[in-house]
Amino acid sequence: MTTPDAAPEAMLPKGVKDFLPLKAAKIEYLRHRLQGVFAAWGFRPVLPPSLEYLHVLERGLGEGLREKTFRFDDRQSGRLVAFPTDITPQVARIVATRMREHPMPLRLCYTGQVLRHTEQQAGKDREIFQAGVELIGLESPEADAEMIAMAVESLKALGAREFTIDIGQVEFSRGVMAGLSLPPARIREIEAAIARKDNSGLKRLLDETPPDDRVREEILALPRLFGGREVLEKAGAIVTNDRSRRALANLARVLEILEVYEVEEHVTFDLGELRGLDYHTGVTFQGFLSGMGRAVCSGGRYDNLTARYGFPAPATGFAFNLLNLLFALDRELDEVTVHRTDVLIFQAGADKEPAQRVARALRERGFSAARDIISRGLEETLDYAHKTDYRFVMIIGDVKEEVLLIGLADGSERRLPYRAVLAGDFTP
Amino acid sequence: MTTPDAAPEAMLPKGVKDFLPLKAAKIEYLRHRLQGVFAAWGFRPVLPPSLEYLHVLERGLGEGLREKTFRFDDRQSGRLVAFPTDITPQVARIVATRMREHPMPLRLCYTGQVLRHTEQQAGKDREIFQAGVELIGLESPEADAEMIAMAVESLKALGAREFTIDIGQVEFSRGVMAGLSLPPARIREIEAAIARKDNSGLKRLLDETPPDDRVREEILALPRLFGGREVLEKAGAIVTNDRSRRALANLARVLEILEVYEVEEHVTFDLGELRGLDYHTGVTFQGFLSGMGRAVCSGGRYDNLTARYGFPAPATGFAFNLLNLLFALDRELDEVTVHRTDVLIFQAGADKEPAQRVARALRERGFSAARDIISRGLEETLDYAHKTDYRFVMIIGDVKEEVLLIGLADGSERRLPYRAVLAGDFTP
Repeated sequence: MTTPDAAPEAMLPKGVKDFLPLKAAKIEYLRHRLQGVFAAWGFRPVLPPSLEYLHVLERGLGEGLREKTFRFDDRQSGRLVAFPTDITPQVARIVATRMREHPMPLRLCYTGQVLRHTEQQAGKDREIFQAGVELIGLESPEADAEMIAMAVESLKALGAREFTIDIGQVEFSRGVMAGLSLPPARIREIEAAIARKDNSGLKRLLDETPPDDRVREEILALPRLFGGREVLEKAGAIVTNDRSRRALANLARVLEILEVYEVEEHVTFDLGELRGLDYHTGVTFQGFLSGMGRAVCSGGRYDNLTARYGFPAPATGFAFNLLNLLFALDRELDEVTVHRTDVLIFQAGADKEPAQRVARALRERGFSAARDIISRGLEETLDYAHKTDYRFVMIIGDVKEEVLLIGLADGSERRLPYRAVLAGDFTP
Repeated sequence: MTTPDAAPEAMLPKGVKDFLPLKAAKIEYLRHRLQGVFAAWGFRPVLPPSLEYLHVLERGLGEGLREKTFRFDDRQSGRLVAFPTDITPQVARIVATRMREHPMPLRLCYTGQVLRHTEQQAGKDREIFQAGVELIGLESPEADAEMIAMAVESLKALGAREFTIDIGQVEFSRGVMAGLSLPPARIREIEAAIARKDNSGLKRLLDETPPDDRVREEILALPRLFGGREVLEKAGAIVTNDRSRRALANLARVLEILEVYEVEEHVTFDLGELRGLDYHTGVTFQGFLSGMGRAVCSGGRYDNLTARYGFPAPATGFAFNLLNLLFALDRELDEVTVHRTDVLIFQAGADKEPAQRVARALRERGFSAARDIISRGLEETLDYAHKTDYRFVMIIGDVKEEVLLIGLADGSERRLPYRAVLAGDFTP
């Protein structure tokens, strides 16, 4: 049993966290800034619920996420309900059931949390904070390029300096793998070796059940097909199947558009990328900040998902993982999100009215201000103000003629006429 | 079974909703505006998790909310976990376990969702959107008054015009009820009659097991002790027990401070109010917009809650119910939150580069802009732009010399030089 004074960490299930003011302010900032970028690109918010029928949610989930879904009995309906593991299927359901009459395309965005079971792996997040967009009703490469360009612009808006958007195309590798006629279990082993970029393991697997030489060559090439734009040409020289060639033409077109957006310097390709959620059908991508292995955003085309809710429409989208962004940009965010309150107002004596009036006047002028209500000496108040990240302490004396303003960063002192502060004449 | 083309409402469990862009934008606005007020008063955000151990969460919940908690087995820990039904106990836990070393008071705020079981009552929300504050470490009436003043200022900031904050004090009625020596079940019946303001039912209950005359008179007065500030005086003439009289003195002091805040015109009292969550220990209040029965905010003093997590501290706080606010302020919010995108850019022909460049230039100037990527005629584009709430359609012709700007509100047309728009010279 946990006792009241147990260690804080024992109080929480693994994989979820409390965020204290410094981190919470950064998460709020990330959300708000991303919502701003999404709005600038014409995306409008939707807000799906935290509770879904399991059978409805599962229609939009692949095997991997189904296993990770928190599910429980709903006393009221007697059915199984679930907490969402992925917001994209929720948006697909909303579009298919509530917005199908709206002329396409729909540009929609969201911020929210999903919960995912993890097994035993300590340190892995189970509560995932997302902010994402969905562009529904367009099959054109311009839509895919718009997603990638938005990912770049978003990362720039957040102050990220060195980052790459790594682009794949699930149809490319599917075209290659379609040349194999092997049992599904064996195909999964081969895919796993490709995903690990494990060339020797891959060779061994292919040696055991050799496909024809052409297919063999294409498959062996997959783990090496990553890097800059030269990858597209290299791949074109290797693959001969139509499906993969169409995927390459599609990627080349996306790249052309990205050049107009002037974001191509951030773009890399990985054609051996087999990942992507089960619903992906074309271009996929992930964003990485330099020096960090976990993706800060990921997404791609999913042309068959809304159909699972009764309304076929092409679509593409992506989402940021806010905790990965927080981790990667922790220092950059220090500069923009110090959640400082401008003024702590201190007044000794019984009559607190002047302090209240000053607080009100400051807030009306757009400053943030709190009163030090607790009874204590000035030294303690200054200590408190330092530890709570205030910018100034304002001291109102017994004689209401002047106030003393102490800057906490440099210890500077200034005297200001009380009446002037009340009248809003205050520039810290 | 639900089929893919079933009615949208059949897709969702009762008590939760999808919010489409118009409503979702209003909820975002409410959150953002309230966060702004909270920050102006010196409150800093915390972000508790969506998943808690049931036994930890329950420590901070009263009987009523315990029953309403969504609970389920955690595969990973083998323990019962829960989705929060109330955020205040989470903040109390965070303060008690993670911030106890910080000098008091702590001013903390949050926005988030809670889930609560409801039994059969159709139409009752199970997902509740909250934005609230907690002021921890102060037992002074000034802290209670700060909460009430913030509630008033928040409602004003949201554009609410007529509203009241209805103030109670749980110690007042507890002092009165302490004069009864009756079995708990009977006391609950009496409390229920008071809460319903059911005078005749109350008389009948008291006749069955008559208390002494003084207590009887005090109890019979409870359902009538609501209204303006005169209620405090009226109550003072009736109650004789010390506990109730201390509660009245406390309320009188809170009212004095509210007069300095100049918010007393919005204040009413209800001393027969027995409601309040199980953890409330003093002043409680609820905010009502005129003409609407459901409270838009509620809160109060809870001096024993952080102690349940091992750190005794006086505290007070309150939270807004965002969906009740949305319902009550739907029209006022229309004026401020039309989530309009400024410009939809239309370009016929194969070369879309000029459209992309213009979109970029507009966004860099702080406008929101989207490209009409889909291939369709101008008429259809205009129809789409109307239905998607764009302000302007900008048409780029084959000759890149001029663009045509169509205002959707009034059908106005203006020609602008392409180069000027690209250079950022654009005022819609």
